[in-house]
Amino acid sequence: MADERKRILTGIRPTGALHLGHYAGALENWIKLQEEYECFFLIADYQVSDYADDIDTVRAAVYEIALDWLAVGLDPERSHFVIESLIPEHAELTLWLSWYIGLGRLQRNPTLKAEMAELEKNRSESVPVAFFTYPIMQVANILMPKAHLVPVGEDQLPHIEMTREVARKFNRLFGEVFPEPEALVGRVPRLVGLDGNAKMSKSLNNAIYLKDDADTVTKKVMSMYTDPTRLRATDPGHVEGNPVFMYHDAFNPDTAEVDDLKERYVKGAVGDVEVKQKLAAALNTMLDPIRERRAEYASRPDAVREALAKGTEHTRKVAAETMTEVRSALKLNYLE
Amino acid sequence: MADERKRILTGIRPTGALHLGHYAGALENWIKLQEEYECFFLIADYQVSDYADDIDTVRAAVYEIALDWLAVGLDPERSHFVIESLIPEHAELTLWLSWYIGLGRLQRNPTLKAEMAELEKNRSESVPVAFFTYPIMQVANILMPKAHLVPVGEDQLPHIEMTREVARKFNRLFGEVFPEPEALVGRVPRLVGLDGNAKMSKSLNNAIYLKDDADTVTKKVMSMYTDPTRLRATDPGHVEGNPVFMYHDAFNPDTAEVDDLKERYVKGAVGDVEVKQKLAAALNTMLDPIRERRAEYASRPDAVREALAKGTEHTRKVAAETMTEVRSALKLNYLE
Repeated sequence: MADERKRILTGIRPTGALHLGHYAGALENWIKLQEEYECFFLIADYQVSDYADDIDTVRAAVYEIALDWLAVGLDPERSHFVIESLIPEHAELTLWLSWYIGLGRLQRNPTLKAEMAELEKNRSESVPVAFFTYPIMQVANILMPKAHLVPVGEDQLPHIEMTREVARKFNRLFGEVFPEPEALVGRVPRLVGLDGNAKMSKSLNNAIYLKDDADTVTKKVMSMYTDPTRLRATDPGHVEGNPVFMYHDAFNPDTAEVDDLKERYVKGAVGDVEVKQKLAAALNTMLDPIRERRAEYASRPDAVREALAKGTEHTRKVAAETMTEVRSALKLNYLE
Repeated sequence: MADERKRILTGIRPTGALHLGHYAGALENWIKLQEEYECFFLIADYQVSDYADDIDTVRAAVYEIALDWLAVGLDPERSHFVIESLIPEHAELTLWLSWYIGLGRLQRNPTLKAEMAELEKNRSESVPVAFFTYPIMQVANILMPKAHLVPVGEDQLPHIEMTREVARKFNRLFGEVFPEPEALVGRVPRLVGLDGNAKMSKSLNNAIYLKDDADTVTKKVMSMYTDPTRLRATDPGHVEGNPVFMYHDAFNPDTAEVDDLKERYVKGAVGDVEVKQKLAAALNTMLDPIRERRAEYASRPDAVREALAKGTEHTRKVAAETMTEVRSALKLNYLE
């Protein structure tokens, strides 16, 4: 029986275990989306060419991410966990699509430009060609299962626009093959790092991981950056732009407690220690069941691999169907 | 039984039927090489993104080229005729290799730069991304069958150098997978066009095709550009740089006749008409058996398809073996 749900494609680059930034920015939303949509959750291991000299990190991260996904409640019975490179049709479709994207169009992609500039800061040589062309691979990721919707942050909108353009161009030249996907721009807050840096990330060492144990979380929270203008607990403090309160807003479901802390904070009637302790408690309450499921799956690595195998195998069939249509549209029937 | 011959990979872009330029520049050499080497003759239909809006031309050209190859005596029993896009492993390997080639390295490739500039002259938009990345696909073409030798013209040397670099880098990082291929720079004269233009090509409409009939060849030769400084048959003429004599040198096996014509030409003792008639006769003598074999194969399209199918199928097996090694080197064994 055909799956009648609308399709969603989204994914993540396997560069390490997942942290609270991923949870707030994506996973929390995905968990809801899988109730209504047929979701393809992609581990994009073709798109980490910035790790070209360190593939062991990528290989380990693929397994860690699957574990994190299972831990937060993504459901492999309902959704498809997909390892990108085990479906080489992605490479084939990327190549055909790159016939229909101008070099200038790619060079002008603002997100890509910013990412390349950032990457080049830390390298003596230029970025790999695969890094430059990764947006085309994202287009292929989306078009392969004929996704209707793509949950994205604002910075990914240029890639969706490119996807729609390529789909239109291909359809115009070769007949209706690809639906034009829509971006699903959610309330996707970018979580600041523990140090107040705009982004939580492994490389900045300012992240709380879903797999961190309770003590580690508490220690990390207690070391958080707060309001630098406040020297004593009796000084009036700033709530806005204060990472500790941003985390309270993002993760503490007890809004009364949060409101009370904020009120006292601006008056200088509460110390950082209490605010942080309550945040640590809220985070650990949230993370406890996730840790529990994670430990449970970690003790059954075969179940994790099975989730990846099942989703990847299913998606490979979907990809084969799409590529049959693509090859037929492109008249690659030389030998018939 | 394993084939013990050294391997050669070479190929052609399917943009139209083959002409004398292809014969002098490549085919004549290939016919000899197949006696000694295991040759993979590739029809590179992944690498004609400059025909993105006109794939019918490409599709028709694939068949025409196979017909031309059979006509000149390339032997599908001895060599492998390969349709590139029917082996999608080419796209997959291209992607992995593009992790190990810097963007700057590709941008500095002098041959690519010249070709892109030429192509952009005739377009309102920039070249397709696939055109920019085609040298990486050539690298994949060469490394896929682990070719030892690659017959090339001087302008292709940058691609071979890139192939050697990538092979070295991959082997250093992941263990010995690819042999470093050598360029086989032959006496590969570039045949001028009928109009004296530096290059014989379809787009310049200055070509004699292998499939042209005798009358067409004669007419084309009679209209050839010769020595513009010579107004009468009794004027002393110039042999050097004169296309008609360049063709005599390239295709007329009767060197005594050619020497006699040259001697009389510089003295003003022979007319253009006689020189051209003798060239037309020599060309038609050379082309007659080619035309005969071409007509014979054209009457048996199944035999042509069979030659393509056989070589492509064999090469796909070779590609699968190489990709098994590549995937193992890259540790893409997530599910094992």
